[in-house]
Amino acid sequence: MATYFITGTSRGLGLNVTKKLLLRPASEVSKIIAAARSESDALKSVIAGSNGRVEYVPLEVTDEEQVQKAASLAAGILGDSGLDVLVNNAGIMPFTKGGVPNMTDLKHVFEVDVLSVHNVTTAFIPLLEKGKLKKVVNISTAMGSIVQAPKYKLTPTPAYKIAKAALNMLTVQWHLAKYEEGFSVITLQPGWVKTDLGGQIADLEVEEAASAIEERLVHAGRPESGKFLNIRVYGWENGKPGKHNYYDGKELPW
Amino acid sequence: MATYFITGTSRGLGLNVTKKLLLRPASEVSKIIAAARSESDALKSVIAGSNGRVEYVPLEVTDEEQVQKAASLAAGILGDSGLDVLVNNAGIMPFTKGGVPNMTDLKHVFEVDVLSVHNVTTAFIPLLEKGKLKKVVNISTAMGSIVQAPKYKLTPTPAYKIAKAALNMLTVQWHLAKYEEGFSVITLQPGWVKTDLGGQIADLEVEEAASAIEERLVHAGRPESGKFLNIRVYGWENGKPGKHNYYDGKELPW
Repeated sequence: MATYFITGTSRGLGLNVTKKLLLRPASEVSKIIAAARSESDALKSVIAGSNGRVEYVPLEVTDEEQVQKAASLAAGILGDSGLDVLVNNAGIMPFTKGGVPNMTDLKHVFEVDVLSVHNVTTAFIPLLEKGKLKKVVNISTAMGSIVQAPKYKLTPTPAYKIAKAALNMLTVQWHLAKYEEGFSVITLQPGWVKTDLGGQIADLEVEEAASAIEERLVHAGRPESGKFLNIRVYGWENGKPGKHNYYDGKELPW
Repeated sequence: MATYFITGTSRGLGLNVTKKLLLRPASEVSKIIAAARSESDALKSVIAGSNGRVEYVPLEVTDEEQVQKAASLAAGILGDSGLDVLVNNAGIMPFTKGGVPNMTDLKHVFEVDVLSVHNVTTAFIPLLEKGKLKKVVNISTAMGSIVQAPKYKLTPTPAYKIAKAALNMLTVQWHLAKYEEGFSVITLQPGWVKTDLGGQIADLEVEEAASAIEERLVHAGRPESGKFLNIRVYGWENGKPGKHNYYDGKELPW
């Protein structure tokens, strides 16, 4: 009977993870609140076929007023049992040709990928405190690993890498603050996926990544709190020749 | 004959590191450009006694126009030999009672402690390219280590910790972009010091920290590029009973 609130569900991973969660019986996943800037046709279609289990809430995560309103709407939908799992999935990954010397978008990327995660989390804490699972999963990236930075040297997404390193520290700060109250706060490497964000040369099909992420959302919890968790994709545990990423379901280094 | 440009020199570590550098002969440290929002009496007095080796440049690091102007002024002072060492020292560490759940200053702290370091670095790259040493030292903190975050759980400076983790990744991005061109880009743990920022219960006297930092500015270089470097303070290599920090001159974990 767990309830989910997921940001960035109009397309890509957010949309597809919502679809995967919906495949579970209502006794396991009773309600998914799908937040997005706008309700895409794809999301409308998921909602229409969900028997009332998926509901849309408008949310531009960088708009603090909308964040407050989304929390109020979610409170109305969820009632006294509160929220079990918050998934901070919305994010951007702009390219900067030439890398960090040409980076002019750091402020904006930080606001979308870090500040808004903090604001959403803060606004949803009262609802999570009422919930049973008290789980927050922040969608990060292996490119946010400072240890692994040399591997991604040629990937021209400097602001995204810096923002996700900050997101990892934000996650750990929330873990340290709330773990003793029963919370689990996890930062998750979702894989490099063939979405609009990831592009078509990415490692994973949307289907396999969405399944792998959904598995983490459902099964990762207290033992994984405060950790930088990888998804597990069969055949990718040790990576592949010529590929930077691996998906072994274990911890990534900071 | 090295030249330095240091931000945040009106007081605290910036001021005292400037004084330490000035103790070296002009054949080693020929010019220090001391940047600060305003020229404090203490800085004026250092400049007055410097025989022209220290010059003041006004710089509010969050003001992009002032950053450009400071780079122009520095170019005028330094001429064709350019700049050897840029020290991004200016920064803030506000307290948030109750820690991350009450954090409302993340955006501002990020702008001062990360974004402005990026803007200053970008503006000074042409001058550094003309210099011999091509060294950038960013003043970070052990509290920016995600690995060591549990140790600092009770220190109520969440925005500072998150910003400094981002600064560490920013540093590594610059290292990866410029190392092959002869640059050294280092992120430095300056110690917890009895300045206005650190407070009087801090570990180190201003004198000993300033000496330890100055030693790193002068001697750290290519082998330390891309690393999270600690200062070395005698007697503190293994920390002290009841203290979180240690100062062994080695690498800190990310």
